[in-house]
Formats: sequence, C-alpha cells, structure tokens
Amino acid sequence: MKFELSARAATLRASEIREILKITEQPDVISFAGGLPAPEFFPIQELAKVTQEILNEDGYSALQYSPTEGFGLLREIIANERMLNAGVKTSKDNILITSGSQQGIDFCAKLFLNDGDYIICENPSYLGAINVFNVFHAKYLTVPMDDEGMIMEELEKILQLGHKPKFIYTIPDFQNPTGITMSIERRKKLVELAVKYNIPVVEDNPYGDVIFDGKRNPAIKSFDTTGHVIFLGSFSKTFCPGLRIGWMCADQELLNKFTMLKQVSDLQCNTLTQREVAYYLNQHDLDEHIAEIVSVYKKRRDIMLNAMNKYFPSTVKHTNPNGGLFTWVELDESIDAAKLLVAALEKKVAFVPGAPFFPNGGHKNFLRLNYSNMPEDKIEEGIKRLGEVMAEFTA
Amino acid sequence: MKFELSARAATLRASEIREILKITEQPDVISFAGGLPAPEFFPIQELAKVTQEILNEDGYSALQYSPTEGFGLLREIIANERMLNAGVKTSKDNILITSGSQQGIDFCAKLFLNDGDYIICENPSYLGAINVFNVFHAKYLTVPMDDEGMIMEELEKILQLGHKPKFIYTIPDFQNPTGITMSIERRKKLVELAVKYNIPVVEDNPYGDVIFDGKRNPAIKSFDTTGHVIFLGSFSKTFCPGLRIGWMCADQELLNKFTMLKQVSDLQCNTLTQREVAYYLNQHDLDEHIAEIVSVYKKRRDIMLNAMNKYFPSTVKHTNPNGGLFTWVELDESIDAAKLLVAALEKKVAFVPGAPFFPNGGHKNFLRLNYSNMPEDKIEEGIKRLGEVMAEFTA
Repeated sequence: MKFELSARAATLRASEIREILKITEQPDVISFAGGLPAPEFFPIQELAKVTQEILNEDGYSALQYSPTEGFGLLREIIANERMLNAGVKTSKDNILITSGSQQGIDFCAKLFLNDGDYIICENPSYLGAINVFNVFHAKYLTVPMDDEGMIMEELEKILQLGHKPKFIYTIPDFQNPTGITMSIERRKKLVELAVKYNIPVVEDNPYGDVIFDGKRNPAIKSFDTTGHVIFLGSFSKTFCPGLRIGWMCADQELLNKFTMLKQVSDLQCNTLTQREVAYYLNQHDLDEHIAEIVSVYKKRRDIMLNAMNKYFPSTVKHTNPNGGLFTWVELDESIDAAKLLVAALEKKVAFVPGAPFFPNGGHKNFLRLNYSNMPEDKIEEGIKRLGEVMAEFTA
Repeated sequence: MKFELSARAATLRASEIREILKITEQPDVISFAGGLPAPEFFPIQELAKVTQEILNEDGYSALQYSPTEGFGLLREIIANERMLNAGVKTSKDNILITSGSQQGIDFCAKLFLNDGDYIICENPSYLGAINVFNVFHAKYLTVPMDDEGMIMEELEKILQLGHKPKFIYTIPDFQNPTGITMSIERRKKLVELAVKYNIPVVEDNPYGDVIFDGKRNPAIKSFDTTGHVIFLGSFSKTFCPGLRIGWMCADQELLNKFTMLKQVSDLQCNTLTQREVAYYLNQHDLDEHIAEIVSVYKKRRDIMLNAMNKYFPSTVKHTNPNGGLFTWVELDESIDAAKLLVAALEKKVAFVPGAPFFPNGGHKNFLRLNYSNMPEDKIEEGIKRLGEVMAEFTA
C-alpha cells in the first residue's frame, strides 16, 4: 500500500467463510460451508404485496430519510412480540434498528473497546464477531464450554484475574459454530456475575427462535433487571437475510450511545425495508412461519446426524444441536481440517475449518457443518463423501 | 454511565441537524434545516413495478445473503454510467456498494485514522463527516475557500507543515454547507498536490449531478491517474435517500480494504434494494429524472436568493450555488446564529446554525439554508420572516 494506513487496517482480513463460499458457488458442490437459510421459505409474494401497499399508501415517506432509531411500528412489534417471545419485557424506546446483528456487534466494539482491551467470549466463538473485535485490537479471555454452554466457574476465575475485560460476548442459543445452548441456570448465573463484577453482557441471539424441540429459551436479557445485558436480534434466520434488518435492545443510556454510533456509521437503516418488515409482521404470524422453517431444518439435522454416525470414522465426535443451523465436528487431534477441506473439495464437498473460530488460535482439528441450506439427499451424499475423506486421513 | 466506555465514546454527540429536524416536524414550521430531497420526485410506481418483477423472476436470490462488494449489475451501471458521467473511466471491479456515502466516510476514517492523526478539509465542511472523524479522534487542518473552492496555495502551505495528514477530505460540487464549487483548474491542482505529497483525496460527491446551469463538472477522480482519489457517490439526492444506496470508487488495493471493512461492519447492503436500484437504472434514464429535479430546485434556489436579497438586512451575505441543496449565509460578526434560531423558531422558521460545520470551532455568525424541500410560496414567506428576525438582531 502506498499510503500510510491506520494500525487497525493491518488487522483486516477477508472472512474465511466468505472466501470459501466463493469457491463453492459451482452448482455441483455440496456445501455445508455457509450459514445460509433455506430460500424456499422466503415469503416472496407476501413481500411483493406489502411493498405495493406501502408504496401506494405512503410512498413519499417510505423513500425519504427517516429517524436513526428506526421505524416506530417496527420497533414496537419487535419489543412487543420478538422480545416478549424471548421472555424480555421492554418497550419500543429500548430498540434500535441495525443492519443485521453484525452491525450491533460492530457498535459494541466501537462503544467499549480501546486498543488492547480485553473481552471475554466462548471458545470457540462466532468468526464474524472475532473479525470485528480484531479490528479494534481486542485481546481475548476465552471460557471453555460443555454441553450446557459457557462454564460459569471458569468464567468467574477469568473475571477475578484483574484484566478489566470490557464485556462478555456470548451466543447462548445454538451457538455459531458449535450448536451448543446455554442452560437456564447458567443464564441466571451469568447475569449474577455480570452484576457482581459490573461488566456488560453482549447477548448475540440470532438463532433462539429456530428451536427444534421444546419452547424458546428465555434470553439472558430476560433475567436482567439492572441494564447489564445488551441483546442483539436479527430477522436473518427467521425471515430474509438479504433485507439486513436486525436490532439492539438495551437500557436507555446505552441505546442512546448506540443510536449516535448508528448516525455516524450510516445515518439509518433503509426506510422502505423497515416498513416492509413491519407490515409483514403486522399481517402475518411470524411464529407460524418459523414453525415451517423449523420442521424442515429439524429433518435436515436428523439426516445429517444419522449420516455422520453412519459414515464418519468412530473417533470423530460431533455436537447434537437442538436448533439453529450448525453442528460442530471434532477430528483426531492429528488431523488439520484445512487440509481435509482441500481433499473434500476434490470430492465436491465444502465445510468451514474450525480454527478461525478460536480467537486465540490453535485447534486445527475442528470443523463446522451447516445443515439448513442443502436438500436431504445431498446432505446424505455429502456426509458420505466427507466420511470417505476422513477415513483416508485417519488411515 | 455505569460501564467503562472506549475513549471514542466520549466524542459521540447527536447530530445537531437531526436534533433540529425533530423540532421542525410540526407541519406549520417552514424548515430550511434539513437536507431532504423533494419527495414529489421519488419514482414510487416505477419502484413498485421493478420490485414486483424482481420478486417474480428472482425472489430467492433477491432475499438471500449476497456478496459484500455489491450486486454485479448495479456496480456495472454505476461504473459505466454514473462514473463515466462524472468523467471517470473505471470498471465494476473498482466499485463497492455502501449504505449511503455516509458509510464511505466512516470507512475512510476507519482505514486511515489512528487517534490524533491529522486530516485536511475545507473550512467549513460537512457536519456528518466531522462527527465521524471526531469519533476517530482526528485533528483538523482546515483550508479556507473562496468562490472557486479550496484555495490551493493555502492547501500547499498546510501540506508543508510536516503534520503528516492522512487524507484530504473535500466536497467539490455544491459543497455542504456552503454551496461552493471547486473550479476545474483547482481540481487538477489538487490531484497534482496529492501526488506530490503522496496523500489520498477523499472526494465526497453526492451533489455533482444536481447542477443548474451547464454540464456536470468532471470529478476530481477524473484527473487521477495514480490512484490517489477515493470517490464517494450516492443516489440519495438524485433518486431516493431512504434506500440508503451509495458507493465508493477506488483503486483495487484500497477497494479490497474497504470491502473487508464493509464485511466486518454489516456484511453487505440490502440484496433486494440493490436489485431495485439496478433494475430501475436499467429501465429508465436517470439523467432525465435528474433534469426534472434540477428544474424545480433551480426555481426554488432563484426564489430563495431573490427573497434573501429583498428581505435580509443589507449587511447579510450569502453564496450563489449553481447546484445542490444549500446556500450559506454570513451574518454580522456580532450575531450568534444559534440565538437567531431560537427567535426564528418562535416565528415558525427553522435553519441550521453554521458553527458545527467548522471542525475547529468558532464562526457563530453563519447559517445554512436548504431550498430543495419547501414549496415556492413557503420559501418566500420563510425568508421574509427570517429577514424580520435578522432585522431585530441587527437593530
């Protein structure tokens, strides 16, 4: 580069996932790599209809600049339906509309992080969040998980180290990449620790509604009576990711700061799109729509888990997610998943190697598999081929 | 705030303009405050039609995640039509779609600025950019303007100071807030200086197409053969601001970095909206549409300038913009425009005081007037009332 850039520019790297996605664009590749929702559930004609309605009734306002906070009706529906569904009693005034929950992650980094500040997160954690935090030169204190999520005793040990971490970042429901869900008891304990050590919790919760068996888990935010939890929500997995509508729910003082960050970042979200989502939600039952999605994802998960048990070498372990889009696979320690990917691509199967999900590095023997975006027969066939590649590597 | 925030959080403040806009929402206020395009030109039914087409033909893709760089067809049209129209020969590969040009400003700050770095800008400059640069703790070296824009001799003196400024930020066409346009000679000289001192130029150019008399000026970028100019474009003033579609045009190496910043900030722009804009541009002549907008804005500008000459005290000066949305008013040095605003609001007239547009402060005796968003009779009446308030302050 011929110009002198900021120190943060040196941390920029293309997302590994998006790079792999480019490779897998060929139609004959069976891809478990992305986090793409199944497009066959996008409510295409319903969206066309509400768009026509909005433009007929209210076209001037729908295409004009609008408030940074977001469209009033949409904020209201999110507060009264989506947040209440997650057990959170809140109001429209505590909701800021963002460009997906990704933008909420960026705003948390901007609001809290000076260069070299520590944050706490699960190990592994969401790659797209790690890439944001890296831009702000974060250091990571990572908490190990078991099948109930972040281990609270380990978290408290870390809180006692004296590193003054700025926040705890967690994906409690069907975590990306592992598919693990934090237990209710631990959610309560997490809020207790947040208050005790006065540290905010960033609850990234895009998958909570996509639950296969049982009722939606109460959000961590539902146990928060002191304003310690910042909730990041998204319609990307339950409606349409291309519309880029997410939200933050936080106490007033924090929400005001996030709103100012939204203003300097891009002024506001798309005025028309916010109305489209609000009108759709007003006229349709999103939970019914989610139930349809869930029934298909659950079937695909079952097929994937069964196929893994059938075709993978017996030493390979995997998680059993009760929702969301991903399962997480642990190979023999000697196997490098990045090398496995090269061999798998030769057999036209793609996945995401797990190493980039570990913020402090290491752990080359993991990989993430997505089951939401491939039809049933391709899941079976893809896992079979992947099992063959694994067998070669194990031999 | 009960949590420890980043140092940058302390710089956050709500945009003065957006705060004033909230006050002026009452329908009986004559507002010259915003930078709102006239909504009567929004192509409402055309947008409804292309949306229906897109969703019918290509609904699955139009609502799915899509590449960070932006929708290929839209990038192509921007390169081949909008950039060429500004005299810039470029290709789709040099275009990144952003959430308005505001996001491009944010990305320039993120890419170049360490805390305390200097940047160079016009004095005054766009408030929305200053608010971004403040978040990144920029220091300002300001260049005075005359009626041909930034004075190049003054710029070169500043470049020789040894402060190593990271970039030159300029709005060459119908600058916000002054309405001043940089002459062609100075554009060439600016590129010459950028190369000589190896400093990038951020050309923020949302108003260039909105020209009243004569042909569009060649962009600064049109004189750039060495990759020193980053061009920020926008459809907000020529199409619909609510759709939040802008772009950056830069050399490959820089554009790659900006694309990675887009990825960590919000993954991508709205997939559907990008298609809507591309389809609209494919089916309609935007320049014809702009010609309609321009004929009305020109008439409104004329009415405002005539009314100012008629009703304002003779000591009050103003610029004579040949395009864009704003004129800039200089009061007697003793008059504080913020106090004038309080009195004007009592007479139901609003404007934006000029002080926040000066990055290093001072200059309380300026104000910005917008002429694009009010019907003709209200412009005359509003300026008349404003003249009365000014007379009281001058007396």
